[in-house]
Order: sequence, then structure tokens, then C-alpha cells
Amino acid sequence: MIPIDDSPIVRDGKSLILAMDHGLEHGPVDFEDVPEKLDPSTVFETATHDAVTAMAVQKGIAEGYYPSYEDDVNLLMKLNGTSNLWMGEPDSAVNCSIEYAVDVGADAVGFTVYGGSNHEIEMVEEFRDAHERAREYDLPVVMWSYPRGQGLKNDTKPGTISYATRLALELGADIAKVKYPGNKNAMSHAVTCAGDMKVVMSGGSKTSDYEFLSQVEAVIDAGASGLAVGRNVWQREDPTRILDALEQVIYEEETADAALEATE
Amino acid sequence: MIPIDDSPIVRDGKSLILAMDHGLEHGPVDFEDVPEKLDPSTVFETATHDAVTAMAVQKGIAEGYYPSYEDDVNLLMKLNGTSNLWMGEPDSAVNCSIEYAVDVGADAVGFTVYGGSNHEIEMVEEFRDAHERAREYDLPVVMWSYPRGQGLKNDTKPGTISYATRLALELGADIAKVKYPGNKNAMSHAVTCAGDMKVVMSGGSKTSDYEFLSQVEAVIDAGASGLAVGRNVWQREDPTRILDALEQVIYEEETADAALEATE
Amino acid sequence: MIPIDDSPIVRDGKSLILAMDHGLEHGPVDFEDVPEKLDPSTVFETATHDAVTAMAVQKGIAEGYYPSYEDDVNLLMKLNGTSNLWMGEPDSAVNCSIEYAVDVGADAVGFTVYGGSNHEIEMVEEFRDAHERAREYDLPVVMWSYPRGQGLKNDTKPGTISYATRLALELGADIAKVKYPGNKNAMSHAVTCAGDMKVVMSGGSKTSDYEFLSQVEAVIDAGASGLAVGRNVWQREDPTRILDALEQVIYEEETADAALEATE
Amino acid sequence: MIPIDDSPIVRDGKSLILAMDHGLEHGPVDFEDVPEKLDPSTVFETATHDAVTAMAVQKGIAEGYYPSYEDDVNLLMKLNGTSNLWMGEPDSAVNCSIEYAVDVGADAVGFTVYGGSNHEIEMVEEFRDAHERAREYDLPVVMWSYPRGQGLKNDTKPGTISYATRLALELGADIAKVKYPGNKNAMSHAVTCAGDMKVVMSGGSKTSDYEFLSQVEAVIDAGASGLAVGRNVWQREDPTRILDALEQVIYEEETADAALEATE
Amino acid sequence: MIPIDDSPIVRDGKSLILAMDHGLEHGPVDFEDVPEKLDPSTVFETATHDAVTAMAVQKGIAEGYYPSYEDDVNLLMKLNGTSNLWMGEPDSAVNCSIEYAVDVGADAVGFTVYGGSNHEIEMVEEFRDAHERAREYDLPVVMWSYPRGQGLKNDTKPGTISYATRLALELGADIAKVKYPGNKNAMSHAVTCAGDMKVVMSGGSKTSDYEFLSQVEAVIDAGASGLAVGRNVWQREDPTRILDALEQVIYEEETADAALEATE
Repeated sequence: MIPIDDSPIVRDGKSLILAMDHGLEHGPVDFEDVPEKLDPSTVFETATHDAVTAMAVQKGIAEGYYPSYEDDVNLLMKLNGTSNLWMGEPDSAVNCSIEYAVDVGADAVGFTVYGGSNHEIEMVEEFRDAHERAREYDLPVVMWSYPRGQGLKNDTKPGTISYATRLALELGADIAKVKYPGNKNAMSHAVTCAGDMKVVMSGGSKTSDYEFLSQVEAVIDAGASGLAVGRNVWQREDPTRILDALEQVIYEEETADAALEATE
Repeated sequence: MIPIDDSPIVRDGKSLILAMDHGLEHGPVDFEDVPEKLDPSTVFETATHDAVTAMAVQKGIAEGYYPSYEDDVNLLMKLNGTSNLWMGEPDSAVNCSIEYAVDVGADAVGFTVYGGSNHEIEMVEEFRDAHERAREYDLPVVMWSYPRGQGLKNDTKPGTISYATRLALELGADIAKVKYPGNKNAMSHAVTCAGDMKVVMSGGSKTSDYEFLSQVEAVIDAGASGLAVGRNVWQREDPTRILDALEQVIYEEETADAALEATE
Repeated sequence: MIPIDDSPIVRDGKSLILAMDHGLEHGPVDFEDVPEKLDPSTVFETATHDAVTAMAVQKGIAEGYYPSYEDDVNLLMKLNGTSNLWMGEPDSAVNCSIEYAVDVGADAVGFTVYGGSNHEIEMVEEFRDAHERAREYDLPVVMWSYPRGQGLKNDTKPGTISYATRLALELGADIAKVKYPGNKNAMSHAVTCAGDMKVVMSGGSKTSDYEFLSQVEAVIDAGASGLAVGRNVWQREDPTRILDALEQVIYEEETADAALEATE
Repeated sequence: MIPIDDSPIVRDGKSLILAMDHGLEHGPVDFEDVPEKLDPSTVFETATHDAVTAMAVQKGIAEGYYPSYEDDVNLLMKLNGTSNLWMGEPDSAVNCSIEYAVDVGADAVGFTVYGGSNHEIEMVEEFRDAHERAREYDLPVVMWSYPRGQGLKNDTKPGTISYATRLALELGADIAKVKYPGNKNAMSHAVTCAGDMKVVMSGGSKTSDYEFLSQVEAVIDAGASGLAVGRNVWQREDPTRILDALEQVIYEEETADAALEATE
Repeated sequence: MIPIDDSPIVRDGKSLILAMDHGLEHGPVDFEDVPEKLDPSTVFETATHDAVTAMAVQKGIAEGYYPSYEDDVNLLMKLNGTSNLWMGEPDSAVNCSIEYAVDVGADAVGFTVYGGSNHEIEMVEEFRDAHERAREYDLPVVMWSYPRGQGLKNDTKPGTISYATRLALELGADIAKVKYPGNKNAMSHAVTCAGDMKVVMSGGSKTSDYEFLSQVEAVIDAGASGLAVGRNVWQREDPTRILDALEQVIYEEETADAALEATE
């Protein structure tokens, strides 16, 4: 962790990261109900919203589409990822180098670490390389901190999420992206475990406007610095409206109710 | 993906790649009925046809035969491959470096990724190295995107082929070479999943003229950018005639019927 | 082993290393009774005590908090570590390079080697790289020498601890950090096996003031050079008082009784 | 494959490679009946025969004995090898670098690839490195192309040998050294599969003069470029005489009968 | 193998290497009866005897103690080693680089290769790196050639020891250190298999003066170049006396009887 409040991916100490790496991680199935979003331009358009501090994509999407949006969108290059066709222990291929991310114009980088996986050792060492190289370019480093693996399948228990944020702090991340641990107290503890490092919640699969915004409200109340969200924005019919609402909840610290009302 | 329409391996936005790496991947058995084609010169001769935008071979064939054809044929150096004597999970040895490909005169490079294989992680990281190095030389990168492995043996289901094109886009390929998913709609979806990246169909084993050209017609109709074909050209008695017909279907967007008629 | 008596992490030939890498190795659970210590600043404050010759933390904690304490605390950068979510044979990810440790201001480095683990070979080779690189920067190298693995789970038998110190000497460590082998004679033998290399006891889980100080007294009597301690200091209500006492026992070679009396 | 007819290891388009790497591959047992040949000088002496275009040895033999023979013998440095004490899947340690081979004065290099082994991928990638480095020094590359491994133990079936020569061509070898597939037709097919690349037969274990020369005659008739032979030369009482005969069969394309008669 | 007769570790074509790496390989248990020898200085003192041409130790012992003995002792830096806490297939961690060995003042280097181990391939490749680097500094390379592993546990059969010396020759060692194969004839054959390369016997566990010297006498008679010995010297009450006797047997080629008498 280094000071990143002056970084372009932070606004008033907060961040809203729009993620669209689902084509790699989940495959086209995530676009079934919104086939037009298979065109990455549509999501880059959404990312021009003022509430969005960065758009997180994989290398191929970045090199193909970011050149048209570099004035209006901050790029968070995700450096590793895996298809869900693969059936091994949780692991993630490092598919982009820091140098290439810089060439494409990245403002920050993202890296998944599956703590507890049989590949934890290897992933942490790959994270080290990315982290130290990113420091040379002053690129903030966001860790997708997802404890997962043998005997710990996709766990969101409070103790696991607190461990996830702490692990990110100990290893040098600037922001930890973690799943919601189920309640505000647990989220608050996870934020405390992160010390001065920022924590953002991972958006997860699509829920109703109210349910989603309430969770974000709880997360902000718990002291987190924002959200990394994909499906809950671009799977919606009107992504702009939910971003308007998120802007209220995250930066203005409004309630979900107030935000919904204001954006109706 | 970067813009490659001005690349020598593209003609009017389309590509017809003549592939002859079967000696490595399948062994001499693929040449049983056409033993004269064991001499790579014969296939390079075929590749001088105007319809062919590139010839895809392995390193040894390229260094041995390409010097005689460099004025008339564009070289697509295949960078990895495996014999079928090997019985492990799908994997592919990187048998040629980008630097060597450049020395031999490559106009583009090809790389197999078996998404879903237990070696996916490693293959994607090798692809990263090849991709980023290829960028330094402005060489287009064609991904043989073949999901395959434990529980997914040589799958051509629509969802698998759509995932294959998307994976290639996300990882930075300029062209994805995928198997035919069985019908035009499925192919069309796979093309949509590829965004602005080009998709070419993999030719597969030899079929009748009509059957083959109809499939190519469907593929072009589905929005694909062409074909990478081996056996369906050089296993034929008259490769020139089928290339004449393919030229009609791919670049002129004629029907299979019309193309066959015109080349009778 | 090279001469390190003039190093900042040594005082009168002795060392008291305050360790706080528990957030990575054990997770937030170690902070359950002292949640305020989740803020690394609190432990860095403790480390400003004159008795403490170095504070041992992981990279992320160092880069985030050490800049505020670099005038008052000597930094011992721990170079590897693992979460306890992971279920494999004992191993430890090298999460920080020597170069980065130097950049952050490290005065010494720490490295875990699990002798007897199925990963011993790999860990020793990683230790070699760290050790030889550390020599270029004249950084003392502390080995967390913890024989552990298949058939040897967290062993503290006398013969094991003697092997642990010897292994550290043979491989080039400047200080070996080992567990207490149960009695003063065994500790004395472990110190003898270390030749001229320094040995410090690993503090272990929290015990009563008297029990803890008596063990430290035995360790110093046995010829060891001090202590690396975490929970037995920062899990206490009054870390300063126990540090005052430890200063007596370690540097003044007072008895536990005398030290306790003096600091009441 | 690059043109090597002007290389010192080729004479009139043919090659006779005298191999003596049996001390590593098989151990001293191959020398039981000819203990004096344990002294590598004796075999280097034999290699001064005009029929021999290169002597193939491992690094240690080369650095120890080649300095005395560099004016009279061409050195083919074998770059990998394995003892037969080892019980794993076929594999071969790369025990010599191209740079070191050059330092010792190599005129060519040799490399074993066990196609079909569980180590095929790794061996082919090691071959790539050696091949590309050898090109920088214009050193011909001979592949010991021996399909072998799980389900394919030391196979000499015609289809396997044809695959072996093709694999060597596809991967860039200049000469393939393969086992005899049992009859001339099969050998002829293997040579055809090699395109313009040279093929030499592997000598195998010692047989009678006539049996051996007849096989060589068949091999030359089949279009092969010669022989790589060890035991059938240096296990003989009079290596010179058999080399005289081989000279007739290989370079003069005499029959075995004629060659035997001429050298009686 | 290169000429090393002028090297400081050779005297009149012979070598007597005093080894003390037992603290790593066996642990403190080897010092149970001679606890004072846990202090490496005591063994370095012994190594100042004229009969000793080199002292073989691990990196940590060398950097800690060799500076005081560099005028009187030649250093043979052992480059790899393993604790016996580890339960895997025979393997050895490369714990010291050639560059570091040179920095510490090494006159030669030592490297263990377990031929026949499942790690043979990897060890031989590590040996290659060390060997080629050592050549750049003109450092003689001693191979601890110990066939061992699955199905071949610590074998000292004649055929195994002959293979051990041959393997060392083939891979480029200057001296092979092997176990005694049980009788003089077998040792003689092992020496013959080594060609012009030197062979020294590994001293083994402590035996009586006569038994030990008789074995050394047999070894010298068999044409070997000397001895690498540890316990049979420094576990003795009077190491100087046995070294006096060894000097007679090795350099003067006296009988064990005569040597014992002369040193009474």
C-alpha cells in the first residue's frame, strides 16, 4: 500500500470500478440476456459515467477498444484470469505484463490471488513480480482477494473475508476487492483488518436495484471505499440510472432509499 | 486485437489460411492418399494461389522451404504444436520463438490454446509472451482456440465455440481459428462474441466439394472472416479448383452453388 | 554468517526482534483479543522501545507504515510467508525481493526455511538467491529455521532444534530463529551447533509474564543472542512493561524475577 | 533444415557418424567385451578413418579427449542424455549448452527427442532453444528422433519411424537419426516423410558383418544419407575393416557383398 | 575433465579432501561423540595438515570460517546439499552459486549427482550450469557421484560404482568421488571406466585405523587418486596421526602397515 488518493482511479477517497472480464472468467453465458453487451464498446460507453473511476478489462479488450476511450475512461488492466472451462484447483494465468499494460495506457492494474488454493504460493510470487514492477510505474495495484480452493470453495464467511483483506494488506495491495461477508459488522471488521488500505466490495451476480444499493450502502457504512461491479451495472437495462444511484451512495454517502428516489 | 486489415494476410477484410502442420500434429497418416504431398513444396505451390492469404506451417518446414516461396506466399509461422503420439492432457510445445519466426520471414504467427485443458494456465502464459513479442514486430497473431481437455474432449458445441472466440478476444488475438459449431446461427453467435476480432473456421477433415463449400458459405454468411484449411485443399486431386471456388465464396460472397458452377 | 555485531539490529551482541507477520501467517484471528493491534501503527509504536533492535513485518505492512517510523525503528523485512488457509506441505511464497526490501529501507531480511518439508529443496534454493543478493547490500539475513513437513509436524524435539540451528549455519544465515526445545540444556546444545552464528528464540503463543521471562532467561543462559517475539509482546495489555523486563533479561542478563521486580 | 552439404560432417551428401555416448546412456556394460574401449582415445583413433564424418560424444568426453583429435576428427557434440539407472518416463538431461559445445570445437550438435513421451513437450522446447542457438553458430543439428514412452516402448514399427523423421523435419532438424523400421520399403517411406532433410539409421546393437552391411545397403537404397553407428564399429575386433566396408556401401553405394569382398 | 594437476587441490597427481558437510547432510548427530568438532574451526585447523589438499564445506561454514584459514587451507566449496529430515527421492538443493563460491575464495567446487534418482534429469542440468560456470573461473569440479533412488537405495555394487565414475567422466567432472565398491578389482574397474579423470574414494563412516588405511591402500593400488574423508579423520581423537598415515599411503604409496608403523 502506498498513497493513491491522488490517483485517477480514486475520487474523494472512493472508487467505483466497472468490471467486464466476464467473457474470459465466465464465458459468453453472462451476456445471454444482454447480447448487445458482447460488444465491449457498449460497456466502455457506460464507463464514461462520472461515477466510474476505472474500467477493469483483460488485455485483449483493452488493446482493441481502449484507444477510443482513453480520454474518458481510466483503464484498470486485469493482469490474470482463467476460463471456467478449466477444472483444476483455483489458479489464474498471468496473461498481461506490466510493460504491456503501460503501453496500452493502464492507470492501474488488477491481480487475482486465491489464498488457500494449492496454487497460493505460485500466485503470491506472481503477484510480487507484478506489484514490484507496477511500483516502478506508480500504478495502483488492486488485488482480487478471493480465498478459494481445496476445502474452502468460494467462501464468504466473515473470517474468510477479513483474512482476505488482511492478506492483501500484508502483500502490498493498494485496494482489496473482496466478496460481501453477509452483514455490515463483518464488512466493518474486514475493513479494520485492512488497516489504511482501501477495500472495495465485489458486485456479484445481478440483484434488484434496492437489494444491490442497500448492500453498497452497508459496505460504505462499514468504512469500505467503494465497489467493483460488473453484472449489476451492465446487465441492467439502464446502466446510467444505477450508476447515478451508486454515485449518491458511494460518494455522497446517501442511503439506498434516497439514491433510488433521486434517480427515479 | 489491433487493426490488421492492412496486413498482407488479409485481403478485403478476409483471410484464407492454407495450413500444413499435419505432419507434426497427426503424422504421415494424413498423407496416405496423397503421398506426393509429403513434399512440402507441393503445398507451397498450391499456396501461391491468389485466394490464399497465408500459409501456416511449423518452423522446420518454413526454414526448409519458405526461402523459395517468399515472394509468392505469405508465411504464418505456427509457434507451437504436439505430436499425436503423446497421451497427456492437451498441451502444445512452443517450438519456435518470435525472433526466429521473424528471421525466417514470417508475416504472422499462430498459437494453439487449449482452453479448459489442465495446461490452460501455462498455455495462456506462453501465449502472452508470444503475443507481446509479436506486437513488437507488428506481426498479426492467430489463435487456434480449441477448448479441449479433461471432461471436454474436442468439443464443438455452440457454447464452447462461442467461448473459444471470446477467449481469443479477451487474450489479445487478432484472428481466432475455431471449429464449426454445427450451424450458421451458432457460428454467428461465436462471431458476435468475438467483437471486432476476426474469426476464421477451421477446415477439418476432407468432405465433398459441395458439403465443404456450403459450410464455408454459412460461415461467411455468419459474419466470419474466412477459413483456415488444410486437408480439404491439399488432400484434393485438384487443389486449384477448390481454391478458385473458395475465392468466390469468401471474397465475392458467392453461394457454394454459384462458386462450384463457375469453377467447373 | 558474516560479522553483524555492528549492524543496527544488534545491540551489545544481542537482538530483540518484534515480529508482526501474524496477519499473513495466522490471519486476523491472532488479533481477536487485541483488535486495536490490527492497526500496524500500534505495533510500530511499541517497536520504538529501546529494547527492540528490529521490527519484522511483511512487505505490505512495511511499505504502508514504515515511512513514519524509519527514524525510530529498524526494519527487518520478512521475504516470504504463507496464509494458513493453504493445506499443502509446508511452503512459503517469496513475496518480496531484496531490491524492494532495500527500497523500503530494510536493515535486515528474514526468510523461512522448512527443513524436512517436501519443499525443502526449493526453499533452500530461494534462500540462496535471497542470501547472496542480501550480501550485496550488506543486509543481515535471519533464517526462520523451522523443520516441518511430512512426518515431522512442527517438531520442537531437542535434536530437531539443534539440526535447525546447524542447518541455518551451513546455509549462510547470520541469525537463526528457532523454537524453544523444551529445556535449557537442549537450547544450549542448539546454540553450540550454531558455531559462531547467533541464535534467537521464537516467542510463541502468549504465556504469563513469569513463564515467558523465565524461558527467555533460560535461553540467554544457554548462550542464545536473544528473542524474536510477537504475541507475547503486542497481545499484552502493556507491551512497554514486558519490553522493559525483556531488556533486563536479554541485555543485562538479569533473572526473570529481578526483571519483573524492577519493572513492577 | 538448412543446406548442410558443405558442412564438414557431410561427404558427398552422406554422413557416417561414429557414436560413443554409451558410457552415459547404457553404462560400462556396453564395454564388457572390449574393455580397452573404455579409453575414449581408442574410439577417437577409429574416428580418424576417412569414412567417418563426425564423432558423437557427450561433453565430458569431448572436453577431455577432443583437443588431441581436433585436426583429424569432426566433433558432433551430443547435448543431452540420461543414464539407464533412471526409471522414469523417457527424458534426457540437457547436459551441455551450445556455447560450451562451440568452445570445445563442435562441428555439429545432437539432441534426443522422445516423441510420445510424457516429456515430449519439455524436450521439444529444449530442442527449440538448442536449435535456434545452433543456427547462430551455423552448426548442423542432428535429432535422435526416438518415439518412446507410455504405451509406445522403444517402437520401431514403420508408422512410428515415418512419424519420427517427419517430426524431425517439422521441428527444424538437419538430420534425423532413427531406428531401422524392419524393411527397405518402410525405410524408404520414412525418408520420403523427411522431405529434403537427411535421414541416417541408428546402428543398434552388434550383429554379424553381413547382416549389418546388408541393412546399411538397404538403408542407402531407400534413399537415406547414411548411418550413425557405435557398437557395430567399436565393439568389433577390427573397426577399420568394417569402416572400409561401410565406406563402400555408403559413399560408393556398393552392395554389402561387394564391400565385404573388397575389404577382405 | 580438463588438466588439473597444477591445481592447488592436487599434490603429485593425488588429492586428499577433508570433508565437513555432515552438519547439513546428517545433522548434529554425527558430532555426538566429538561435540567439540561442532566448532568448524577445529576441523579447519586439522585441514592445515600438509596431506590435505582441500577442505570441503557448505557455503555458510565457508563464509564464516574460511577467512581465517585462507592462507593455509584450500577451499572446495560444496555447491549443493540436503538435510536428512527430508523424505523425498534423493535430491540436493543448489545452495551456493559459482560466483559466490569465487567471492569466498574457493579453489574448487563440489556437486552431488544422484544418478538413477527421479531427480537425475534436473540434477544433471544443474550440474551443467555449475560446470560451465566453473570453467569460466578455472575451478576444478568434483562430482559426488552417488547413484541412488527408486529401486537403487545407496548402492555400492561394483557395476554401480563403475557407472558412477563413467557418468562423472561423460558429464565433465574433473574428479569423481565415489563409494568403495567392496574390493580392489571393482575399484580398479571403476577407475578404468573413468578414463583419464581422477577418482577419489568417499571415506564413509568411522572404522578402525587399520581397516580404514587398508581400504585406502587398496584404492590407491587400484589406481585411484586419493580420498575424500570426513568422519574417519575428524571423529578420531588424533586426526593428525591418521593424516600422517594417510600421507604415507596416498602420496608415498606405502602400505597401511608401514604407514601405521611410521606414525606410531
